[in-house]
Amino acid sequence: MGQMEQLKPYLERAMALQAALVLFEWDNETLAPEQAGKYTAKVQGALSEAYQEIMTKKEVRSLLEKCGQEPGLTERERAIVREAAEEYDKLEKIPPQEYRAYQELVAESARIWSKAKQEQDFEQFAPTLEKIISYQKRFAGYQAKEGQRLYDVMLDNYEKGFSMKKLDEFFGLLKEELVPFLHQVMEHGKEIRDDFLEGGYPEEKQRELAEFMAEYVGFDFHRGVLAESAHPFTTNLHNHDVRITTHYKERMDSSLFSVIHEAGHAAYELGVADELTQTFVGQGASMGMHESQSRFFENIIGRDEAFWEPIYPKLQEMFPEKLGDIPREDFVRAINKVQPGLIRTEADELTYSLHVLVRYELEKMLMEEDLDVRELPGLWADKYEEYLGVRPKNVAEGVLQDIHWAQGSFGYFPSYALGSAFAAQIYRFMKQSMDFKGLLRQGELEVIREVLRRHIHRFGKMKDSRQLLRDMTGEDFKPQYYVDYLKEKYGKLYCLK
Amino acid sequence: MGQMEQLKPYLERAMALQAALVLFEWDNETLAPEQAGKYTAKVQGALSEAYQEIMTKKEVRSLLEKCGQEPGLTERERAIVREAAEEYDKLEKIPPQEYRAYQELVAESARIWSKAKQEQDFEQFAPTLEKIISYQKRFAGYQAKEGQRLYDVMLDNYEKGFSMKKLDEFFGLLKEELVPFLHQVMEHGKEIRDDFLEGGYPEEKQRELAEFMAEYVGFDFHRGVLAESAHPFTTNLHNHDVRITTHYKERMDSSLFSVIHEAGHAAYELGVADELTQTFVGQGASMGMHESQSRFFENIIGRDEAFWEPIYPKLQEMFPEKLGDIPREDFVRAINKVQPGLIRTEADELTYSLHVLVRYELEKMLMEEDLDVRELPGLWADKYEEYLGVRPKNVAEGVLQDIHWAQGSFGYFPSYALGSAFAAQIYRFMKQSMDFKGLLRQGELEVIREVLRRHIHRFGKMKDSRQLLRDMTGEDFKPQYYVDYLKEKYGKLYCLK
Repeated sequence: MGQMEQLKPYLERAMALQAALVLFEWDNETLAPEQAGKYTAKVQGALSEAYQEIMTKKEVRSLLEKCGQEPGLTERERAIVREAAEEYDKLEKIPPQEYRAYQELVAESARIWSKAKQEQDFEQFAPTLEKIISYQKRFAGYQAKEGQRLYDVMLDNYEKGFSMKKLDEFFGLLKEELVPFLHQVMEHGKEIRDDFLEGGYPEEKQRELAEFMAEYVGFDFHRGVLAESAHPFTTNLHNHDVRITTHYKERMDSSLFSVIHEAGHAAYELGVADELTQTFVGQGASMGMHESQSRFFENIIGRDEAFWEPIYPKLQEMFPEKLGDIPREDFVRAINKVQPGLIRTEADELTYSLHVLVRYELEKMLMEEDLDVRELPGLWADKYEEYLGVRPKNVAEGVLQDIHWAQGSFGYFPSYALGSAFAAQIYRFMKQSMDFKGLLRQGELEVIREVLRRHIHRFGKMKDSRQLLRDMTGEDFKPQYYVDYLKEKYGKLYCLK
Repeated sequence: MGQMEQLKPYLERAMALQAALVLFEWDNETLAPEQAGKYTAKVQGALSEAYQEIMTKKEVRSLLEKCGQEPGLTERERAIVREAAEEYDKLEKIPPQEYRAYQELVAESARIWSKAKQEQDFEQFAPTLEKIISYQKRFAGYQAKEGQRLYDVMLDNYEKGFSMKKLDEFFGLLKEELVPFLHQVMEHGKEIRDDFLEGGYPEEKQRELAEFMAEYVGFDFHRGVLAESAHPFTTNLHNHDVRITTHYKERMDSSLFSVIHEAGHAAYELGVADELTQTFVGQGASMGMHESQSRFFENIIGRDEAFWEPIYPKLQEMFPEKLGDIPREDFVRAINKVQPGLIRTEADELTYSLHVLVRYELEKMLMEEDLDVRELPGLWADKYEEYLGVRPKNVAEGVLQDIHWAQGSFGYFPSYALGSAFAAQIYRFMKQSMDFKGLLRQGELEVIREVLRRHIHRFGKMKDSRQLLRDMTGEDFKPQYYVDYLKEKYGKLYCLK
């Protein structure tokens, strides 16, 4: 039996344990009863421990080494070995007891965060957050190559090839170009009416709309589930079981664009090739590339006027009292309205990356400058005031709004902004080779999806995000395209010359 | 470190893998997308394999042996070692490849069964059923003690102390007493009207009723979930996460009594002591004892007129057009109407055990007489005609009605009848020491639940069912009480002298 054949059962079991952990997480977020947490966390801890154990077995290391030198492997096998070896390196350095204790901590911390947010009380969450940060630093320290900074290690876990150096440049460009542009829009742009998006959209009708919209943009209900959770997300067990969630709010565009956004993530996972799913390369290339797909769906497809041509009448029919008298042009302007706000997930396309900028700067301070977590609420408020001109009245709409830190996801946020920028670059490329708006106008979204699938989705983690961009667009990552895209679109919308 | 301390991490991981398998099963039955099956079955296979592997490790055997001789163990620890050793013995004899292949087979077979049932085509399911039976026989063969019959091995897995010999007596008594009594009811009993139970109960209102009823009989939504599935069932991850399902049909009593039934199962699992949950003795004692609780809730509590006194007005209020003019007495008679039918799960209390009798006799023939599965549909129909006087028109309402065989559950069915008989014995005991009907009339179900919890639920698997019966009622199992109970109740209802 070849080395690769010998390695397979270990990796297969590791993937099965990961799938179980994914299902528990899904279940916790969507359905599990309130009091289950403490007990279920033990189960999650034990499964994580089993995962770490199998991935760091001596046999696995030796097989990975041998496979790494095997000349006869296919490209697919080489990629699997590469990704598995990386995971081995990461896990092997973390003492099992710490790993398990950390997994149990984050399995429970979402609940603590959620309660603190509900009660607008940062102090309830602060000790847990401190513990999570301390683990994160320790783990990054284990993983760090000589001289590597801790936050760079974390960033690398979500997006290869984007260190602080590169991100400082990227966010520097955004700050320099977008903050003044935003001021211009707010001061000289014309008023846009969007009052009709709020109130009077019964949850049941919104649910119907969510199902329609998911289907319309190509979500395959034979291989997927749409559910509800406090915070919309996408997860998957494999490429035949991809799940998205949404939440229903007073403003109808909240759920509407959540669904389109998550359906973009789902398109990615549904598009991974059958021969890659359930392997170490069977998921999206990176968080940034994932976000590029969700934001491509949400903004570049979903907020385009051409997208609404075939389906706006359906919307008017569903909500005649709200939208019957609103022309499509007004609706499209409303869903693109720029309005600096406090909540990232409800931000418009133009201000979105500034929300991310705040988090990036704070994460850097937490990881590189030992910022005391108790200073977070104040700093958060100051930065929002500086970049967006708004100041949170409480921590629920401030530092506690996102679940990510409660899940131990540090270094994740930047990928939201990167994803938006990747999407702009992909869009620029696609427009050159196809009648993009024409396809939207005819409702032929499957043509667009197919291009994304062929160039991006099917490869899973075979290539990293920069490689995918290069192979698709012929260029390395160019953030200027993102700035250009935003300025052109919003300059036009707000009639700036 | 003591032997028990050394054993703990192995058992804990085994329990975590079991919990993951439970969650996958729950998810498959309630939510998973249609096309996920084939891929998810691999995950379930790999987790089952990991479970078998950890439970059959040399270290586990040696620790179990040492613990078995350890004088200092607590009663709880001794019970855990006993149950774990039994599981070890069972799993150790099954070749890992067979075990895994079997787990993957049953992970997928429910889907095949479901399709065959829907299309009323037994032939679609027959080859799978044959495979399952062949595995079941092989596994029972591995497990059998010298001279032990295969079906006795299977029965023992669900209910200790009830071999074919004992069950032949039990079912013999039921056949002898209940078949003629049923004829008497059908021929000389008065007509009972139940047309108002059918039609005109919108699903949404039924859902509302299901939630109300679950809560009313004590289902704790902080530690539980109520969902929908084709076939109602109860499952649990631990005593703080217990889940029940129901289905909504044209006849409103279908979901209504499913919910009360499953809430009885749930009461058992919710009542297991905290120090037992997530251990090998952390679940109900046996399938029969479990069923005693569900049928106690469904029939002895839920179909008693006193139970409806405080809540029937609420029902009338919810369904004024259907029940507004129906007096409570008529409603209670309707929900107790005897009506020999084809579907076990919708059977009335009197005919219920005759449905089980059919399955018991067929399972015996399959396991002990090598009955060809292709003869099942015909034999099934003949037996229904003989015992119940009705004959299925197709396999969906005949041999394909239950999921159990598709899940590899052979030897399980008898516990349904045993459970009903245990329940009658428990009821007889309880009536002697408390004003049972008075409590129902005052809606004080928690007093009844508390007695069940104290005598049965909290012990988990510390005692087997006959021990529990003896300790609670002071007597070994006496099936005559069940016959007496049925004859008294239905003799009265149908005004037989």
